Amino acid sequence: MEVRARAPGKIILAGEHAVVHGSTAVAASIDLYTYVSLSFPPHSDSDGMLKLHMKDVHLELCWPVDRIKEVLSELGRQIPSSPASCSPEALKLIAALVEEQNIPEANYSLAGGVSAFLWLYTSIQGYKPAKVVITSELPLGSGLGSSASFCVSFSAAFLALSDSVNLDRSHQGWSMFGEKELELVNKWAFEGEKIIHGRASGIDNTVSTYGNMIKFRSGELTRLKSNTSLKMLITNTKVGRNTRALVAGVSERTVRHPNAMASVFKAIDSISNEVAEILQSPSHDESAITEKEEKLGELMEMNQGLLQCMGVSHASIETVLRTTLKYKLATKLTGAGGGGCVLTLLPTLLSGTLVDKVIAELEACGFQCLIAGIGGKGLEISFDSSS
Amino acid sequence: MEVRARAPGKIILAGEHAVVHGSTAVAASIDLYTYVSLSFPPHSDSDGMLKLHMKDVHLELCWPVDRIKEVLSELGRQIPSSPASCSPEALKLIAALVEEQNIPEANYSLAGGVSAFLWLYTSIQGYKPAKVVITSELPLGSGLGSSASFCVSFSAAFLALSDSVNLDRSHQGWSMFGEKELELVNKWAFEGEKIIHGRASGIDNTVSTYGNMIKFRSGELTRLKSNTSLKMLITNTKVGRNTRALVAGVSERTVRHPNAMASVFKAIDSISNEVAEILQSPSHDESAITEKEEKLGELMEMNQGLLQCMGVSHASIETVLRTTLKYKLATKLTGAGGGGCVLTLLPTLLSGTLVDKVIAELEACGFQCLIAGIGGKGLEISFDSSS
Repeated sequence: MEVRARAPGKIILAGEHAVVHGSTAVAASIDLYTYVSLSFPPHSDSDGMLKLHMKDVHLELCWPVDRIKEVLSELGRQIPSSPASCSPEALKLIAALVEEQNIPEANYSLAGGVSAFLWLYTSIQGYKPAKVVITSELPLGSGLGSSASFCVSFSAAFLALSDSVNLDRSHQGWSMFGEKELELVNKWAFEGEKIIHGRASGIDNTVSTYGNMIKFRSGELTRLKSNTSLKMLITNTKVGRNTRALVAGVSERTVRHPNAMASVFKAIDSISNEVAEILQSPSHDESAITEKEEKLGELMEMNQGLLQCMGVSHASIETVLRTTLKYKLATKLTGAGGGGCVLTLLPTLLSGTLVDKVIAELEACGFQCLIAGIGGKGLEISFDSSS
Repeated sequence: MEVRARAPGKIILAGEHAVVHGSTAVAASIDLYTYVSLSFPPHSDSDGMLKLHMKDVHLELCWPVDRIKEVLSELGRQIPSSPASCSPEALKLIAALVEEQNIPEANYSLAGGVSAFLWLYTSIQGYKPAKVVITSELPLGSGLGSSASFCVSFSAAFLALSDSVNLDRSHQGWSMFGEKELELVNKWAFEGEKIIHGRASGIDNTVSTYGNMIKFRSGELTRLKSNTSLKMLITNTKVGRNTRALVAGVSERTVRHPNAMASVFKAIDSISNEVAEILQSPSHDESAITEKEEKLGELMEMNQGLLQCMGVSHASIETVLRTTLKYKLATKLTGAGGGGCVLTLLPTLLSGTLVDKVIAELEACGFQCLIAGIGGKGLEISFDSSS
């Protein structure tokens, strides 16, 4: 029996940074996925190992399950029956297990993800030998929610072959979890995210689990029922950024200019609410779609100006802006800024030739370009009973 | 007897566009001047002509004063004793006098300025033969207040050799008008500005007349007493723009997104007031100056983001931004946007080598770079009794 799970990445459509200061923000899933497969070796064939193969980075990790059990039993640990946080003590022991694998320095940023994997696997499946393979269409650490899509697809695959969920495992092709199972996956994934990031807002895993779009404000998440299909060009500037420093910079600017910044956050709150409203409004025909796209493009341009006002833009982002502005396309950074990824709305009626031209120009600057549908499906799973 | 007058150009330091929607804005003079000289030929030598020599564009215009008198007397016109508006009928007759000169098409944008010249000259000096020479350090029609500095220096020169003002004409070198005379010049210049632009805010001529800085809001001008000397790099993108269309674009965006835009205008109002406050605060030592410059730079960056949010930026402006951002210099557009001129704050402690590098990079993009001191003197005059 093998199960595959796939979970999408996310973008922030509006409101990043301002959300820290009480504004509304809107996030959406993108149709770029992380795929996880989980299979148990037949008992006869088992070598008693838990294997993790991270295909994209050609990394194969392997632990004897007895060794994991031995280490984690130091805690007198019970397998939790419902999503639970990884205690600092447990995290320390898990980190030691990861450490033993001598992950090459170039991939060391993946150590947090591997810890999350170990925590989620042992919490859901116990100490059973297995093989887990992961591969992702998402660039890592670029603000597209790769870590959340890891955690969601791990959790889903582990749960799918557990007794915690009740599923029709004979279904062919990708299928969705029920509402109750999704909730369980989302909670587990959130625990994984906390292991990777120290703390997490829960936005990324929620978008990755449920897909579509969500609106969030002051920690409260609302799932939107968008029926608007949008296409975005995602430009990865590949400029690394320090999210914590960028967030701190905005806060310091807010202390220096409290009145101006309060108005800026209020403007962004209005923009996010407008974006959410437009996405949820019906679009009967082509002209309604074009009108929606024009409005959204304008709101993206406005949001980008306000992000620049907060000081989180970057020369690389300006380069993308300047390039797409020539083609009258709306562009904004997504996520932390200071580099990272930049969104450009691709209207439905835009010619493919023009898109190719824009991409060629951006790639000539050394950027990576991805095209993604926005607001699509969340987590899906697929069983392969032949294996 | 010859008199020379010089009047500075201006920049908008904060609040352009938003001022139309009730926000505060701040303008400042720049030490780039328009120079006007006026001389009367000796009676024995007079050929009965009024001559205007526009040196920068190699244009020499010439009218028999009798011809001017004949045309304008159609109105039964009285020489006004105090600043008066040019009636539509008078403007029509003056336009005809300008038309007769067959100004080359390339210089046709100067026709309004020539009309203003004729109106101001005949209103203040009557129909006396004279020679007027004008030259300017300001690029024309790029938002640096060249037309206002024309009108101010014309008005000042014409008044200086009239009976309307009482002056010590024996003083050597540049000297300032008294407060009463400045007020008269400013009023006349405003009438000239209205001839050139159809309507005018009075900001440009007020800054050109009085120099230093002014704050304005809802038509109310307040002269600031700034004791901060600032240096700006002014980059003329040479991209022509349609101010009226840009202003209309902001208004349309405000109709589409009233809440967001109201907050944007409020943010800009806060920024302008902060700028005015910083400029007027004392700066005792070098560290106080550096601190001021840092604050102003940050406010400029914020203002630029908000201007971008209003949709009045342009690819050429983004190019300047991106270039100066590399050197961590603060940049904002000034005036209408959509091209035009862009300001970059040059901190006192910035090395000349770095400035040269930035300028070289900007000039390589085809832009024109000027360095200007900000908030300096306004109108000055100088008599030469030897001629």
